[in-house]
Amino acid sequence: MDKKRNLMNYCPDIKVVDATLRDGGLVNNFEFSDEFVRALYAANVAAGVDYMEFGYRASKNAFNPKEFGKWKFCDEEVLRDIVGENKTGMKIAIMADAGRCDYKTDILPKKDSVVDMIRVACYVHQIPLAIDMIEDAKAKGYEVSCNLMAVSKVAGDELDAGLRMISESSADILYLVDSFGNFYPEQIANYAQRYVSAMNGKQAGFHGHNNQQLAFANTIEACRWGVNYLDVTVNGMGRGAGNCYSEQLLSFLKNPKYNVLPIFDLVEKYMLKMRADGLKWGYDIPYLLTAVMNSHPRSAIKFVADGRTDYVKFSHELTETE
Amino acid sequence: MDKKRNLMNYCPDIKVVDATLRDGGLVNNFEFSDEFVRALYAANVAAGVDYMEFGYRASKNAFNPKEFGKWKFCDEEVLRDIVGENKTGMKIAIMADAGRCDYKTDILPKKDSVVDMIRVACYVHQIPLAIDMIEDAKAKGYEVSCNLMAVSKVAGDELDAGLRMISESSADILYLVDSFGNFYPEQIANYAQRYVSAMNGKQAGFHGHNNQQLAFANTIEACRWGVNYLDVTVNGMGRGAGNCYSEQLLSFLKNPKYNVLPIFDLVEKYMLKMRADGLKWGYDIPYLLTAVMNSHPRSAIKFVADGRTDYVKFSHELTETE
Repeated sequence: MDKKRNLMNYCPDIKVVDATLRDGGLVNNFEFSDEFVRALYAANVAAGVDYMEFGYRASKNAFNPKEFGKWKFCDEEVLRDIVGENKTGMKIAIMADAGRCDYKTDILPKKDSVVDMIRVACYVHQIPLAIDMIEDAKAKGYEVSCNLMAVSKVAGDELDAGLRMISESSADILYLVDSFGNFYPEQIANYAQRYVSAMNGKQAGFHGHNNQQLAFANTIEACRWGVNYLDVTVNGMGRGAGNCYSEQLLSFLKNPKYNVLPIFDLVEKYMLKMRADGLKWGYDIPYLLTAVMNSHPRSAIKFVADGRTDYVKFSHELTETE
Repeated sequence: MDKKRNLMNYCPDIKVVDATLRDGGLVNNFEFSDEFVRALYAANVAAGVDYMEFGYRASKNAFNPKEFGKWKFCDEEVLRDIVGENKTGMKIAIMADAGRCDYKTDILPKKDSVVDMIRVACYVHQIPLAIDMIEDAKAKGYEVSCNLMAVSKVAGDELDAGLRMISESSADILYLVDSFGNFYPEQIANYAQRYVSAMNGKQAGFHGHNNQQLAFANTIEACRWGVNYLDVTVNGMGRGAGNCYSEQLLSFLKNPKYNVLPIFDLVEKYMLKMRADGLKWGYDIPYLLTAVMNSHPRSAIKFVADGRTDYVKFSHELTETE
C-alpha cells in the first residue's frame, strides 16, 4: 500500500503559506500600497492562513532601494508598521535569496524581529552557501526553510546529493519549487516522495507555477504524498503564469480553521483593479510554451509585455534559442 | 501493483476529441462563422486530432432553428458543406441529447451520413432512453458513445446500476463527464477505475470542466487509469469555466502524430477576437464557487454576464438557494 493520504479527510498538519507580496512583487516591482498590504495581512489572518511571506530581504549593496518597492527589502520597521508585534495566530516569513542577501548583518536575531521564518532560496549549485544561510538563521532563532529552485533542470544524481546536504542541515522545511511550471502531477508524486523521504521526519513544502494550469493540481498532489507547507498567492498573483490561487486551496481544504471569504473580498476590492490598471499575470499560451520547454519564463513575460500574440513564431523562437 | 500507465510513455491508444463547436456553442448560441468552422476543421486535421464534434443534432420540433446557430442542429448538408466526404484521418462526431433529439428520424443511416460517431448525452435517470438511442445509432452503423452527465450528483448505488446498464448496451465508449467541474484528481482516479472496469474491455472517455482549473489535470489523471477518449476545446472554449484546452493536452501527449502549432495559429487568428468581441468563458471565481457547491454553473454564468464582482455576496446566495 502506498502512503498517500486522502484529501477528503481533515488534515491538520497542512500549513497554508501566502506568498502574494513576494512572488506577486515580481509582477509589480514590489510596489504595493500600504493600504493593500494591510488589507492582505488582515484577510490572511481572517482566512486562517498559517504564514504570510512579506517579500525578500534583499541586499541594499546589490540592489538600489530607489529602484524597487520596499517589499524587496522588508526592513524590520517596514514590517512592524504593518503588523506591529503581530499578535495574531499567523506567522511572518521573509525570503533570503542566496547571493542576493547580506544575511550575516541583515537578518537580525529573532528576539529583535517580528519575523518567524526565514525562507532561504537557492539554486542547486548554491546549496553550500544556502546551508551557511540556514545555519545563520537557525542560530539566530528562526524557523528556516530551504526553497531549492528550478529543480526540473537538475539531474537525478545532483539532486539527490543536494537533498542529502539540505536534510543534514538545520533546515526545518525543504521546499519542492516548480520554478518553470514544468512538472505535471505524475512527476510531482515522484518528487514529493523523494523530498519527504529525504527530510526523514522534518517537513516538506511545495511552491508551484501555473504555466500549464497545474499549480493547484500539483499542490494537492504533493500534499497527498505528505508535503505539508503549501504556497499560494491571492488570485494566483506571481511571476509570469503566477501560482496556486489562495481561493482554490482554501476552498478545497477540509479544515474549519480556513475561511475563503476574506480572500474573495480582497480580490474584489483590490486585485481586479490591479489587473484593470495593467498588471499582468496568469495562464497564457507563452507560459505554456516555456514550461513545456522547461525554461525560464522571462521570454514569455517579455512576449506578453510587448503585446505579442504570434504564438507560432514564439514557439519557433524558443526552440531556436534553446 | 496498480494499473496506472506512465504518461511519459508513448500511448497510441489515446484519442483526442475536439468539442469546440459543441461545448463552445453553448457560449455563443452556436453562431460560428463558416470561415471559423472551416479553419477549426483544418487546424484539427493538421494537429492530428482524432475526432471533431460539430455540435448537437437537436430536435427542430423542440428548438426553433431561427433562435440558434446551425451547429445546434448539424444538418447533414451543413456538415458536408464544410467537410465534403471528409477524406481525412479525422472522424466526425455529433451529439444527440436524450429528450432533445428526434433520433429515430434525424439520425440517418451511416451509409447516408458523413458522421462517424454519435455521442448520446443523458442524465442518470434517462439511461433507458439513452440506451434506446444507442441501439438505434448502433443499428444504423455508427460508433456510439454514452456521455453520462452530472455524475458528481449521483449516489453510488444509482451510478453502479447505470454503469451496468450502459456497459450491457451496444455503446462503444462510456464517458465520465464532470459537468460541474466538481471533481478533483483524487476523485477522478476512483471514478476512472470504476468506468474502465464497468466497460470491461470497451472504451472510456473523459469530458472535464475548468471550474477549479483542474480540467487538464483531471483529463490526464483519467488517462493514467486507462481512459482513452479525451475531450478538449480550443482555448478551453466551453460553457462557463470551459474545458481542457486543446493546447495543453496536445503539448503534453508524447505521440508524434499530434502537432499543437495549428491550434496556436487558430487561437491567434480567431479566438482572441472572439474574446475581444465579448464572448466570455474560462476560469473565474463564480465558477469555482458553483463547483465547490457541486451545482450547475448557470448562476455563475449569469453573475459573469451581469458584470458582477461581488463574490462574497454571490457565495452567500449560493448557500441560501441550495
